[in-house]
Amino acid sequence: MPMEGEKVVRVQETPLHALVEGLLRASGADEPSAEATARAVVDASARGVDTHGVRLVPRYCQAVNEGRITQRPNVRFERLAPSAGSIDADHGFGHLASYRAVEHGVELARETGCAMITVKNSSHFGAAGCYARAAALQGIAAIGGAHADPFVVPHDGVKPFYSTNPLTFATPVADAEPLLLDMATSSIPFNRVLLRRVLGESLPPGVAVDANGDMTTDAEAAAYLLPLGGTDYGYKGAALAAVIDILSSAFAGMPHGNKVPGYLAHPFSERIPVGHFFIFIDPSKFMPMPLYYAAMQAFLDDLRSQPAHPGKSVMAPGDPEIAYAAERRANGVPVDLTTWGSFKTLAEHYGLALPETLA
Amino acid sequence: MPMEGEKVVRVQETPLHALVEGLLRASGADEPSAEATARAVVDASARGVDTHGVRLVPRYCQAVNEGRITQRPNVRFERLAPSAGSIDADHGFGHLASYRAVEHGVELARETGCAMITVKNSSHFGAAGCYARAAALQGIAAIGGAHADPFVVPHDGVKPFYSTNPLTFATPVADAEPLLLDMATSSIPFNRVLLRRVLGESLPPGVAVDANGDMTTDAEAAAYLLPLGGTDYGYKGAALAAVIDILSSAFAGMPHGNKVPGYLAHPFSERIPVGHFFIFIDPSKFMPMPLYYAAMQAFLDDLRSQPAHPGKSVMAPGDPEIAYAAERRANGVPVDLTTWGSFKTLAEHYGLALPETLA
Repeated sequence: MPMEGEKVVRVQETPLHALVEGLLRASGADEPSAEATARAVVDASARGVDTHGVRLVPRYCQAVNEGRITQRPNVRFERLAPSAGSIDADHGFGHLASYRAVEHGVELARETGCAMITVKNSSHFGAAGCYARAAALQGIAAIGGAHADPFVVPHDGVKPFYSTNPLTFATPVADAEPLLLDMATSSIPFNRVLLRRVLGESLPPGVAVDANGDMTTDAEAAAYLLPLGGTDYGYKGAALAAVIDILSSAFAGMPHGNKVPGYLAHPFSERIPVGHFFIFIDPSKFMPMPLYYAAMQAFLDDLRSQPAHPGKSVMAPGDPEIAYAAERRANGVPVDLTTWGSFKTLAEHYGLALPETLA
Repeated sequence: MPMEGEKVVRVQETPLHALVEGLLRASGADEPSAEATARAVVDASARGVDTHGVRLVPRYCQAVNEGRITQRPNVRFERLAPSAGSIDADHGFGHLASYRAVEHGVELARETGCAMITVKNSSHFGAAGCYARAAALQGIAAIGGAHADPFVVPHDGVKPFYSTNPLTFATPVADAEPLLLDMATSSIPFNRVLLRRVLGESLPPGVAVDANGDMTTDAEAAAYLLPLGGTDYGYKGAALAAVIDILSSAFAGMPHGNKVPGYLAHPFSERIPVGHFFIFIDPSKFMPMPLYYAAMQAFLDDLRSQPAHPGKSVMAPGDPEIAYAAERRANGVPVDLTTWGSFKTLAEHYGLALPETLA
């Protein structure tokens, strides 16, 4: 997901992390919160997930500065059963609470084989894939998701009920990046609509609706999103969104998605609490690891060598991000000029230095 | 999923179950195998999932009679860790092995909060939702899936790699049917293509491809299916199919989907081993059950009362099946005449009586 057609500067990952962490610290976040949030958004940007990368930071700085996000959260883990746990995020950054969920979940899965952790009183956690990937890099497979304020209409409905409720799955691959699925349960994210507006392009059919809930390809008229599957098969995307909402709300002790107040519609001094969930699985409990790794490699080799349409190739989940990561390690992480401008303003305001840019 | 435009007879659920069990027993299946398989297919038919209901029985009778399916399987459960287990189906009916997975999984989840069970050396298990629903009726939420022989092309690919790899999720609702998602990760099942051929109708765009892997709306030319999301967003459906394949193969000790031999392409004396997986979650470990049930009810009430397009209503996952089940309890389960004819032939061959029909 590159920022097509946008001008960018490029910054190496380490100084970008330091800048983001510094801006969050200066905005009031304590060290663990700033570090975890910087880790997640720079990880997303480094892997090409720009929609959930560093461009979120100015908004996060505002949220932690104005009181939506707890500056020094008391993140508490409670083990509810041998394979069940809950994290109370204390209305701090969702990234910190989610990395904590990974820490505890990995430990529980190593002990029992499989464990679920819910997160409550949390906030936007950025890219869901960051947390599943973090588990998989430690040898533990993970499934996860989160709900948020509504802007996806349910199938046959005309009013938003779900957020884009992301679903993630990651599982270890020997000596390589984990296999990583990280998908919205809508066809597109809303900032894809915004991008089409800027470019003056229309939307494909079946991805968005206007303010009346009627399907539209006019990016200017698009007000909400349709679930994955569009007007014909959107009951599937909506059903996935429902499952993710339930696991993030009824199982976590949070209100369901369409009771979550609008993130941008409310002052940044108000809390917008949301829930997440993660399931962790230790492959070594199910299979001897050499056999598991051989099976994963056979799957990937076979999938990646499938015949494709001219000019295309068959990719495994996460392959595009692996390619982005390689390119960005070499050339730096692109930051769009709007975000870079915000970084500059914030850095000046807080007396921080901007890192060197590469382009 | 009714059998649109098809002539049917209607039979009450209990005598239909007795007939199916009798036919499977007469075809060689032992009592546990015949009972579990009859339970699953009659449950699917009773809830309107005709594609995975009793119409599969003549084929199952052939498979168990000709040696593909073990007639008296030694289904073995092994607890691999406190929250991990594996079932060896011994090449018997997938339905028996899957209901066994539910029995053990429910027990483990009650003990530890969350548990995963893989199933290996299994066979077609019918409708995935039967097993998640069976767990949810006992108060335990479940996620599950299975792979099979390939007839869905990967995104940008031209050759089938995945099966329709179903995903299911069920969770308890107080004094009511569980919420139940049961979906193929393709937009449509292949017998939807066959039905369009019979009706002389074309397919919607983005659901099927011809023998060259090119998208087609011609039902006669359609050879394989596209993943959910179609030509634009099919990488999402394909990624879901990949996850289900991996959990059913690398985690279960089975070859991945496109190494599974074609079900219909091989003689019914040959085995076609496949894997399944299930994750079980005890909501009571995460939330006091009154709070959980209240949250689920609030979710369902709110979702079902959402404004909809004229003549439509917003439904929760599984609501169509709840409506079918009510109608079929009243009027009997419809059996299409082709299947009924096969039942008649088999019943005559084995000296079994056909049950009374209602229409």
